[in-house]
Amino acid sequence: MKLDTILQIIYPLDEDYLNKAQERLDSLAIPRGSLGRLMDLGKQYAAICQDLMPTVRKKRIFTFAADHGVAEEGVSAFPREVTRQMVFNFIRGGAGINVLARHVGAEVLVVDIGVDYEFSALDGLVIRKIARGTRNMTKEPAMTRDEALKAIQVGIDLAREAARDGVDIIGTGDMGIGNTTPSSAIIAAVSGLHPAEVTSRGTGISAEALQAKIETITKALSLHNHVGDDPIDVLAKVGGFEIAGIAGLIIGAAAEKIPVVVDGFISTAGALIAYEMNRVIGQYLIAAHLSVEKGHKIMLEHMGLQPLFNLNLRLGEGTGAALGISLVEAGVRILTEMLTFDEADVTEGECE
Amino acid sequence: MKLDTILQIIYPLDEDYLNKAQERLDSLAIPRGSLGRLMDLGKQYAAICQDLMPTVRKKRIFTFAADHGVAEEGVSAFPREVTRQMVFNFIRGGAGINVLARHVGAEVLVVDIGVDYEFSALDGLVIRKIARGTRNMTKEPAMTRDEALKAIQVGIDLAREAARDGVDIIGTGDMGIGNTTPSSAIIAAVSGLHPAEVTSRGTGISAEALQAKIETITKALSLHNHVGDDPIDVLAKVGGFEIAGIAGLIIGAAAEKIPVVVDGFISTAGALIAYEMNRVIGQYLIAAHLSVEKGHKIMLEHMGLQPLFNLNLRLGEGTGAALGISLVEAGVRILTEMLTFDEADVTEGECE
Repeated sequence: MKLDTILQIIYPLDEDYLNKAQERLDSLAIPRGSLGRLMDLGKQYAAICQDLMPTVRKKRIFTFAADHGVAEEGVSAFPREVTRQMVFNFIRGGAGINVLARHVGAEVLVVDIGVDYEFSALDGLVIRKIARGTRNMTKEPAMTRDEALKAIQVGIDLAREAARDGVDIIGTGDMGIGNTTPSSAIIAAVSGLHPAEVTSRGTGISAEALQAKIETITKALSLHNHVGDDPIDVLAKVGGFEIAGIAGLIIGAAAEKIPVVVDGFISTAGALIAYEMNRVIGQYLIAAHLSVEKGHKIMLEHMGLQPLFNLNLRLGEGTGAALGISLVEAGVRILTEMLTFDEADVTEGECE
Repeated sequence: MKLDTILQIIYPLDEDYLNKAQERLDSLAIPRGSLGRLMDLGKQYAAICQDLMPTVRKKRIFTFAADHGVAEEGVSAFPREVTRQMVFNFIRGGAGINVLARHVGAEVLVVDIGVDYEFSALDGLVIRKIARGTRNMTKEPAMTRDEALKAIQVGIDLAREAARDGVDIIGTGDMGIGNTTPSSAIIAAVSGLHPAEVTSRGTGISAEALQAKIETITKALSLHNHVGDDPIDVLAKVGGFEIAGIAGLIIGAAAEKIPVVVDGFISTAGALIAYEMNRVIGQYLIAAHLSVEKGHKIMLEHMGLQPLFNLNLRLGEGTGAALGISLVEAGVRILTEMLTFDEADVTEGECE
């Protein structure tokens, strides 16, 4: 299904499911509301799936990988070839996302949406390459509008395939040397804030390199000086292929009524692009964690999302999403597996 | 082993293990430190177990249950019989702790250390009752010193049994109608703060009832006016059997080199009693979450512990500890399962 059509079939959560889930939660044999945000997660999940006794069986994390023309400006502490090296590490199962996905019982699907390398067919790798990296946004648009739309469509299609495979919950992830730079550029463009307010050290660059990174983003934004109103235009001019893929995945998941756990900074930039196209999408999202990158909080607040935890993560790959998926599952099980006061023969209290 | 002896065989974590674990973490194929607190958890765990390739296989959560004489002052929104009703719910597997323990692959052991009910033998219930509830602390000491020592010994013995059973990690939990009152009294006695500064609404009492609860604690502390210097004296005069059991469990676990994930407010009051006996114990603890109870933060700061997450939980039972155990396991797996730059053939960056 194409973007324009799909944006029309994303609906606000059904109040009836929200109310019925809340009723069940209020009847559980505990002081009312005392399992806090776990209960909110169970309720949101039930309303998204339109099922009051839902399960979280099939979990899939998509790690979109792409290269960035802007990396040639020296915005990262790591060289470009690390993107493809990490793809091989993901496939081999030795990266952080593999470890945490195994821990929470999720599958990892790596998507080459724009890596500067020609992969042969590998188990666990989906090749949907738009190009071998974006162009340098300080000199020209990172992508054409058509490339941006194609990359979004990759995500939409993957969400559709996940629905067909019976996936219950989706996690987002990213790999792309240099990709905190387009992510910071996107939030600066959407919010109108100065790049200095939304840019941090990424993989761990020096104070001078951070200054240069901020100048790089400032230069790109001033080159594309009309950017800001149209999310697809923002994405094309200063974004990245993996960010576009994540945006599409989120749009597709919302249309398919699949809850999405959003990883950290780069994934949230993708979520922001999707949200700007249709704000109802925010109801389908769960923000996993608060990243060390300072622009992250600004994006989450813009979308009204509150992260589940803050463990000083700043890796990406989907690592935060994996842990978040486990918390969502915990919340769903609270909704569905706990006994009520009646069922457990426990005397109800007189709470306020 | 008796309390005095066991307090002598708790040692600070071995610097050598801490350093070697840090070396491994620094060599992983990610920007240095980018998995944040997960890496700290892996390191702490390795140093506690004195094993650089540790596993988190056998997980046991102890839910200590007891009644409280002070409940007759109307400090809870729930009647006293709920303590035993909830014990039956735990045994049946329908409570919050059962659901979350199943979710993280942990076993729940319910310990009757002072419930006002004579249980017959039940699978999953350990009967180590000291008395059928404490006495009313506003009129007399909650326990004799001998009772407090016996309850601590219950915890010490259970830690020893866990070590014999090959338990890798321990979680603490509690059930006892009225038990936020002794917990608040303990923190007030240890810190010297006014009860109003450390007391919240527990299961959800009204504003008036909260005022009465604060007055109840103030009255008890003024009756036992020398309380504060000796943690066993504090525990005996204004504590509870489950709090004593948790203190003993933590002391025993530290001696056995088993990491302990501390649940919320009541468990932390138990941890505080243990910590006041030997501050090295703090190195063996992981604080799971920040409770809604305002005295919780004060206790955690006093012990130099930083909670892993804040999900507005205020249930107890060990529910926060269950989720915390899963994060510790995630951290350990990061330490042991991820590939290094060398192993994964990834180019190292030039991070600051």
